Amino acid sequence: MNKVIETILNHRSIRKFEDKPLSKEQIEAIVASAQAASTSSFIQAYSIIGVTDKEKKKKLAELAGQQPYVEKNGHFFVFCADLYRHTLIGELEGKDIEPSIESTEKFMVALIDAALAAQNAAIAAESMGLGICYIGGIRNHLDEVVNLLKTPQRVIPLFGLAVGYPENLSAQKPRLPFKHLYHENTYEENTQTLIDELKEYNEIIKKYYLDRTGGKRSDTWTEQMGKMLEKQSRMYMKDFVEGQKLKLR
Amino acid sequence: MNKVIETILNHRSIRKFEDKPLSKEQIEAIVASAQAASTSSFIQAYSIIGVTDKEKKKKLAELAGQQPYVEKNGHFFVFCADLYRHTLIGELEGKDIEPSIESTEKFMVALIDAALAAQNAAIAAESMGLGICYIGGIRNHLDEVVNLLKTPQRVIPLFGLAVGYPENLSAQKPRLPFKHLYHENTYEENTQTLIDELKEYNEIIKKYYLDRTGGKRSDTWTEQMGKMLEKQSRMYMKDFVEGQKLKLR
Repeated sequence: MNKVIETILNHRSIRKFEDKPLSKEQIEAIVASAQAASTSSFIQAYSIIGVTDKEKKKKLAELAGQQPYVEKNGHFFVFCADLYRHTLIGELEGKDIEPSIESTEKFMVALIDAALAAQNAAIAAESMGLGICYIGGIRNHLDEVVNLLKTPQRVIPLFGLAVGYPENLSAQKPRLPFKHLYHENTYEENTQTLIDELKEYNEIIKKYYLDRTGGKRSDTWTEQMGKMLEKQSRMYMKDFVEGQKLKLR
Repeated sequence: MNKVIETILNHRSIRKFEDKPLSKEQIEAIVASAQAASTSSFIQAYSIIGVTDKEKKKKLAELAGQQPYVEKNGHFFVFCADLYRHTLIGELEGKDIEPSIESTEKFMVALIDAALAAQNAAIAAESMGLGICYIGGIRNHLDEVVNLLKTPQRVIPLFGLAVGYPENLSAQKPRLPFKHLYHENTYEENTQTLIDELKEYNEIIKKYYLDRTGGKRSDTWTEQMGKMLEKQSRMYMKDFVEGQKLKLR
């Protein structure tokens, strides 16, 4: 195993950071790493907003569901899908790009672009001994996030990335078994095989929680997912996205 | 700069591979790296399909727009957004998860999950001296890709990742200027500043093409983007996604 794969496999989300800001050099290395990621047909359909203003960070922490590590960290990045830039390009080049930009396909492209960049940023940060935590919670109230960060139409803040010096290391949660996640040539057609694999994984997760909580918590993965997915969350998203003039056509 | 950031910054897409398959160990290290990425609320809403069957690879290369490197490489991975697994979980746990799964929010979660995993896979592969190329072209004809890979409903093949031993190294294309991509606290509100930055970048890209083609090609980034976005591509995507029972609600 090489140093890079070691860094990747050592990942765990960090939810407690020292109150020590990242240096300008660290921020620049993280953003340069993000930008080095592949981008669909060179479209570069994302932007990054670094939030350093204390009031803004406090507000974001509230909006994300009272997550203190959104406020207290080394640096807080917000990764945005960005097709506003391309709207300007349409004007600049005198091209009608609206139908293209308002398509589901381009929405997907922008999301994927932003996520590829973010994961490079995350790995770069971790390689410097920093910890990271993705903050999907900013999607709880995107209307307020958009006001706070003054993002124009066709920019959708997707998630935050809290980065900083870790105060404590959390445990790593076991992932789905390789054979369940990885298929060869065709997706596993036997439903019972998939269900058996999920049950096998359930035992691993149950043991993980039992060990970690000294017997207090024992839920399985499918229990946890069933409970989570039964709740309807962020159901305003379609209206929000379309309100930002990224129509899902 | 450390070894990890060096690997990340050294990325370039490789479009010509030796005809030498990856080893089982390499494939496993790449998939394990993918799985080590963060996943939204532990949802793990993606799957990976490794395509080794020669006929299938040939067909995929055609569907992706006659890209020979889809057929000739060390290994071809297809990254899929996957909420089929969670459909099974709904049945297993007796929970009504349909409204949640059919939301735009969960569609976004699955796309982001898959992309974070893919970028870890890409970096892991590159750290082993392999080259990679993302293949968005599989989205040209997703109905046929779905038949070929036998993916069930609620699984959307998003992109391929061709991995292999590079036959030649391509050049790195300069990215958008840091100041244009990265904002502090609020998105740049001055449109003229954004446009000036785009024009500045245009000069860099123009020079890049001139140098690379010995004066034959001189297009700017906004020209290139304007032409690309004027064309409407993959406009069937919304119908396709909804046909796979992932409603964008």
